Amino acid sequence: MLVFFNGQITDQEKVFISPFDRGFQFSDGVYEVIKYYPKRFFELDAHIARLKNSLNALEIPVPNLDNFKQILEELIARNNLVNSPANIYIQISRGYQFPRRHNFSPDVKPTFFITVEKYLSPEEELANGVKVGLEEDIRWHRCDIKSTSLIPNVLSKHRAAQKGLSEIIWHRKGNITEGTHSNICFIKENSLFTPPLSNFILPGITRKVVLNLCRQFDIPVNETEININGLKEFDEAMILGTVTEITPVIKFEGIDTNLKKPGPICRLLQREYKKLCYE
Amino acid sequence: MLVFFNGQITDQEKVFISPFDRGFQFSDGVYEVIKYYPKRFFELDAHIARLKNSLNALEIPVPNLDNFKQILEELIARNNLVNSPANIYIQISRGYQFPRRHNFSPDVKPTFFITVEKYLSPEEELANGVKVGLEEDIRWHRCDIKSTSLIPNVLSKHRAAQKGLSEIIWHRKGNITEGTHSNICFIKENSLFTPPLSNFILPGITRKVVLNLCRQFDIPVNETEININGLKEFDEAMILGTVTEITPVIKFEGIDTNLKKPGPICRLLQREYKKLCYE
Repeated sequence: MLVFFNGQITDQEKVFISPFDRGFQFSDGVYEVIKYYPKRFFELDAHIARLKNSLNALEIPVPNLDNFKQILEELIARNNLVNSPANIYIQISRGYQFPRRHNFSPDVKPTFFITVEKYLSPEEELANGVKVGLEEDIRWHRCDIKSTSLIPNVLSKHRAAQKGLSEIIWHRKGNITEGTHSNICFIKENSLFTPPLSNFILPGITRKVVLNLCRQFDIPVNETEININGLKEFDEAMILGTVTEITPVIKFEGIDTNLKKPGPICRLLQREYKKLCYE
Repeated sequence: MLVFFNGQITDQEKVFISPFDRGFQFSDGVYEVIKYYPKRFFELDAHIARLKNSLNALEIPVPNLDNFKQILEELIARNNLVNSPANIYIQISRGYQFPRRHNFSPDVKPTFFITVEKYLSPEEELANGVKVGLEEDIRWHRCDIKSTSLIPNVLSKHRAAQKGLSEIIWHRKGNITEGTHSNICFIKENSLFTPPLSNFILPGITRKVVLNLCRQFDIPVNETEININGLKEFDEAMILGTVTEITPVIKFEGIDTNLKKPGPICRLLQREYKKLCYE
């Protein structure tokens, strides 16, 4: 696999960083995942804007992104992925600083790393839905920054996998926030409900696209707190994300709900989302 | 500088990791800082025990540590630090995993990295005390794990430096937890007060040593919640840590206290601590 690393495209096995990179020692960095659908970069401007927001929040200098799309195009082409959906992973850390100190120096040069990987659409999950678990959200309070401080996500996702679940949905004191790698929304009586944007959730780009689709199709949108004690009220649930796309949720582990199978609003949103990706 | 990296001692400029190391992509790793005083590794067993606890909490396999002390001795010797105090930094990440996935595979081999650095004792701070700030503690809820998820620490320490402060002390809803790289304790009427161990603070080894010294010198110890509204009650305050040792706090930025200058209990604890380090 060819990757982009600090201005050059090279084989992933030949790319190395120092263990004094602050991304390694302090999780001092941010990332993005962008989807390529032949032949477009889905919501590229929104991803770039969010990347800049994350960098600004951590006071990491924003690299020159003038030729960013061109780099992505070259990576896709040189990895022979022009005709396949692909996930693009972008990570920018604050960079190498020696010796190790918590304080960062303004002259540290960021590490800029991009990979692309063929996306195998999880047709079965998109068609039949997934089971998820619920856990308390113990993350820090700046989940709106897409930082590489992902250890809570790793641990929850690991527990999910051990239980045969596709995702863990977190809640803070009973109010649902989001999943380890997705936002979540629910349907009740043909209206959509989803937790409001705040410092406790990532402003998801798939979430934004889905809310726009709802407005377009006259589905009322309620950005409001959703308590885990009220899950039985909902007719449908979906997790949303760049990789997850719009995946129906058919079961919350250990909780009695009326979800059972993917519903009509999910199908409508999936169909319209697919059009945006491919047509 | 010579460092230890995955079984070998080599020049720090020749050591590299892959950007697919989970320590870089997910902050999926732990660390320790141990102090070397000629010629002892201070509280080595306690540091090893805490390192193992952190690894176990993240389900990272514990590497063979049978010859750990020997490795540290060799690093100290080969860096010509035998006669100088030194900080030893140990980082273990879950290791390289390709392609990037939140889930970790049990056959990932950890990355094991150790550096040593001459310790220049901050005599002026130890003698005259430091100023600190107060901020809300927005970290995750497993601060008892010494993980490399340190971005909140980096950001608070950066703000401290910008204001000319030595440390930020955090509080959760008014109750003090700890600093970005230290525990904290207070003195009132010759008794010591410090926040109790919980998932919200690191079980500091200097903290443990100081509490033992208090018991030895008949200074009553109160491990109890300390509210920021009660700071005026205290006669002394100290921050505690492997690098920080016992540093008096003489001011909380923006708060009227009676601290003003290092007090007699601080001096007693500093003196006795120094004996443990050097005698």
